[in-house]
Amino acid sequence: MVNDGEASFFRSRWVERPAYVREVPGAPLPAGFRAAGVAAGIKPSGGLDVGLLLCDERDAVSAAAFTRSGVLAAPVLATQEVADLSALRVVAVNSGNANAATGPDGMEVALATQAAAAELCGVGVAEVAVASTGVIGVPLDPAKVIGGLTAAHAALSADGEDDFVGAIMTTDLFEKRASLEVTLPSGTVRLSAQCKGAGMISPAFATMLCFVETDAKLDAETARLLLAVCVRRSFDQVSVDGQLSTNDTAILIASGASGVHVAPESQDEALFGQALDALLRQLAIDLCRDGEGARRVGRITVHGGDARGVPNVARAIANSPLVKTALYGGDPNWGRIAQAVGMAVPHSAPLPVDISIEGVDVCSGGSFVPHDEAALAEAVSGPEVDYVVGLPGDGEEAQVYFSDLGHEYVTINAEYTT
Amino acid sequence: MVNDGEASFFRSRWVERPAYVREVPGAPLPAGFRAAGVAAGIKPSGGLDVGLLLCDERDAVSAAAFTRSGVLAAPVLATQEVADLSALRVVAVNSGNANAATGPDGMEVALATQAAAAELCGVGVAEVAVASTGVIGVPLDPAKVIGGLTAAHAALSADGEDDFVGAIMTTDLFEKRASLEVTLPSGTVRLSAQCKGAGMISPAFATMLCFVETDAKLDAETARLLLAVCVRRSFDQVSVDGQLSTNDTAILIASGASGVHVAPESQDEALFGQALDALLRQLAIDLCRDGEGARRVGRITVHGGDARGVPNVARAIANSPLVKTALYGGDPNWGRIAQAVGMAVPHSAPLPVDISIEGVDVCSGGSFVPHDEAALAEAVSGPEVDYVVGLPGDGEEAQVYFSDLGHEYVTINAEYTT
Repeated sequence: MVNDGEASFFRSRWVERPAYVREVPGAPLPAGFRAAGVAAGIKPSGGLDVGLLLCDERDAVSAAAFTRSGVLAAPVLATQEVADLSALRVVAVNSGNANAATGPDGMEVALATQAAAAELCGVGVAEVAVASTGVIGVPLDPAKVIGGLTAAHAALSADGEDDFVGAIMTTDLFEKRASLEVTLPSGTVRLSAQCKGAGMISPAFATMLCFVETDAKLDAETARLLLAVCVRRSFDQVSVDGQLSTNDTAILIASGASGVHVAPESQDEALFGQALDALLRQLAIDLCRDGEGARRVGRITVHGGDARGVPNVARAIANSPLVKTALYGGDPNWGRIAQAVGMAVPHSAPLPVDISIEGVDVCSGGSFVPHDEAALAEAVSGPEVDYVVGLPGDGEEAQVYFSDLGHEYVTINAEYTT
Repeated sequence: MVNDGEASFFRSRWVERPAYVREVPGAPLPAGFRAAGVAAGIKPSGGLDVGLLLCDERDAVSAAAFTRSGVLAAPVLATQEVADLSALRVVAVNSGNANAATGPDGMEVALATQAAAAELCGVGVAEVAVASTGVIGVPLDPAKVIGGLTAAHAALSADGEDDFVGAIMTTDLFEKRASLEVTLPSGTVRLSAQCKGAGMISPAFATMLCFVETDAKLDAETARLLLAVCVRRSFDQVSVDGQLSTNDTAILIASGASGVHVAPESQDEALFGQALDALLRQLAIDLCRDGEGARRVGRITVHGGDARGVPNVARAIANSPLVKTALYGGDPNWGRIAQAVGMAVPHSAPLPVDISIEGVDVCSGGSFVPHDEAALAEAVSGPEVDYVVGLPGDGEEAQVYFSDLGHEYVTINAEYTT
């Protein structure tokens, strides 16, 4: 099953596969992990909709990151309130229903799910994370989820990743997953991840979920730091439509089963972190690639001297429907970039902004630069388009990956009804 | 010409025509004003593209409001830097080219335009506002603009409003203008306005321009206050696509030719202000109605106790592509409202948000409320949809008008190329 042929996961030119990282698609989960996915009747399609991930190692460590939304789904609240985020061993997840805006009843369902998963897996509730994705404002039937978990528990297997991936997907057009082998100075470890998300998507809105497993032995603080840094450089830097979900969840569990200790501030840690960074950034770009009918992914890099302005400008560009429709249309419309910059840093005129697209300078010091428009139009017709904006000053940089905005986005979001 | 038949301007159910305000479509400009519009070869279509507005009264007073963008077009800079905003008597405007991101050369063109208009009209440059709308990053030919102004000056007339309106339009699908007669305790005055804008629109991006004339006699401070308050309640509260232009300009000129003095803190001032408010709010709603293929206009009202959170939530909802596509699709998708609320007030969960659509409660205290979904779907299929969001606390309110997001938006913005 293991295939070390052409890279199949690291597709983006913006993510380099570290030389010590090997793709092992089809390999079982890292040592110490089992997973399963079943159809429990939550999705109207009858597809896989309940997933269970279990780490068999008692001294596993974990880290978790969540949406910052003020409207949190019940499973996010249950995980944050009941679980010990540094000692998670179980993830119980369902798709087809986000269990969001469901009030106290929804909270009871999330807590019951968490308790049922704990009992099935023989762990404490504090070791169980729950996650949901799908429509909101619709009651989630606890009998279906718990029935699904019971069936999933019976099916748990080191080869269960395929079904687990299926059970977390909603409107995703392709699977977002990777199985990697990471050769560190102290030994070889495995690193795998399953991710879902295509923006905040119809029929109500969806979510980004990402589960990462490794058999490396990490300290809890190392896991927390690595996940926080890598999420900040990946999932925090993408925009399909600028819409923050109620359910976003990323969880890293380290079983330690390989016996390879990734010690704090070691070369192992630096290299493991670099591998995790590449993994999560490729997954984040995949979220954009799969973003609601996207044709193209853009990357905007903004540099300058203003610690608040630089990230604001990057987000304003990535979220601008004018920039996104231009990306969709293969139109090197730098005027829309200039306009988004101006909007993001008000009361700063005249702002000597520099803009380049695919390496071609189009605006310098706030004024257009003559350039070969036909060549630039050709350059922005590919699957990835690179934008760079320079603001006055130095020392700050922000980068955001974003999808385009096209007819399929409108079709998906306007023509489904709840 | 004067028609006092059915209301033709105050179309929105959200704007009430004050009883003392009468529509006088086809009437000449208020006393003291002349205008003209000519084709000067700036628009590739050969349409009207240079407009001139002149107030013949030497002691006219004015007020002006501009975009807050950090990337300001040259005419905005020229007007702000050279003109006395409280004593404007001339507006020289062109469409077809925004003269934005055109650097020092563009600034020279704006200053030359301003000087030419001053000389033609026999006023000082400090009395001349210049404004532009159209493509950006393209040099504006000063010979065309100045030639156009010369022709327009020769054509100035109290009946020149039709051509002036034509000369400020770009991709607008319909004219946005009003001729009103306002009966105040101290006498009857005229109030007219010409406005253009359909969002930040293709081929590069466009702009909102609004020129308001009255023959009432206003003090400069009264004009400034009234325009500031009414702009804040109208043009500051609309979102077609959340994109702030480089060129937005609103100018009010009061000729005083009626001899009716609208004194500070008088009943006249209160009633004149109310009329101006209704005028600008209807024009603002018209901008949304004409917003890039819009089918429907939404109004979001948010109330609660958080002076920063309340307006942020209103804007987040109005700018959400998920809310906008749902509006387009006639889908009462309140989950997307809840999601946008959560995004706008991060780290506040669990937030007991209340949501109603067209008067139907759909979410209360953060939890869904059973309702007649078919009746609600019917209610959101009209041209205007009303959303109300309640957040904890009391005392703050914000309101934003917004257009939907549909296929025409994508077509307009993706399929034109610069």
